[in-house]
Amino acid sequence: MTRVILRIDFDEERYIGHGRIELLELIGEYGSIARAAKAMGMSYKRAWYLAESINSTFREPVVERQHGGKGGGSAHLTPFGQSLVRDYRAMEAQALKTFAKPLKAMEKKLGARKDFRT
Amino acid sequence: MTRVILRIDFDEERYIGHGRIELLELIGEYGSIARAAKAMGMSYKRAWYLAESINSTFREPVVERQHGGKGGGSAHLTPFGQSLVRDYRAMEAQALKTFAKPLKAMEKKLGARKDFRT
Repeated sequence: MTRVILRIDFDEERYIGHGRIELLELIGEYGSIARAAKAMGMSYKRAWYLAESINSTFREPVVERQHGGKGGGSAHLTPFGQSLVRDYRAMEAQALKTFAKPLKAMEKKLGARKDFRT
Repeated sequence: MTRVILRIDFDEERYIGHGRIELLELIGEYGSIARAAKAMGMSYKRAWYLAESINSTFREPVVERQHGGKGGGSAHLTPFGQSLVRDYRAMEAQALKTFAKPLKAMEKKLGARKDFRT
C-alpha cells in the first residue's frame, strides 16, 4: 500500500522526518533512549545525538532525560514532544487523503512487482 | 523558509522522492544522465542505477536513452516522465498549503537559529 512520508525542513539544518518521529515515538513507548535505539537498530550514540538535535531545534524540550539510577537513567517525551509526534502523524494521514487522486494515477502506472532480491 | 519534502513509497522497494525527482528534472534539462549526475555531485553509475530503478518502477519508461555518438549518447524524459515530475512538484506545493496551520504552529516553536558549523 502506498505511503506518503513527509520531511519538514525548517531551514538547511533543522528538520523533522519519518525516522526522527519514529525515534520519538519509541522513546515515549519505552521510556528509554537506549531501548528506543535498539528497537530501531541504531547505536545509542546516534539516537542520543538525534534526540539532542531535535531538542535544539525547538525552544521547548521535546525529550527529557532523568540521569542516574540502575540502568543509566530514563527518558520521556514532554507534552510538546507528544504534540509534535501527533501533529506529524496527522499530517501524514492527511497527505494520503489530499493526494489520493495523483497517487491513484501513479499507482495505475506501476509495473509488475519484481522481487529485486532474487 | 519551511519546505515539505515528500517521499512516495509504493511498496517496500519502489518509491519516488525528492532526490529522484531532482535527478529526473536535471536529465530533462541537460539531456544527459552524465551531466545530471555531475550537477548533483553524484557518480554516473549511481545516477544510471537510479534512472534504471525509476524506469523499472513503472510500466512505461520515464527516462529514455539514445546510445552512441560523440559524448556517449544522450537521455531525455518521456511525456510520462515529465508528467511524473509535474505531479510530484504539484503535490509538494499543495502540501505547503494543506499543512499551513500545523507548520505555522511548529515554526512558532523553533528555537533561535544556531550555526552548527561554527
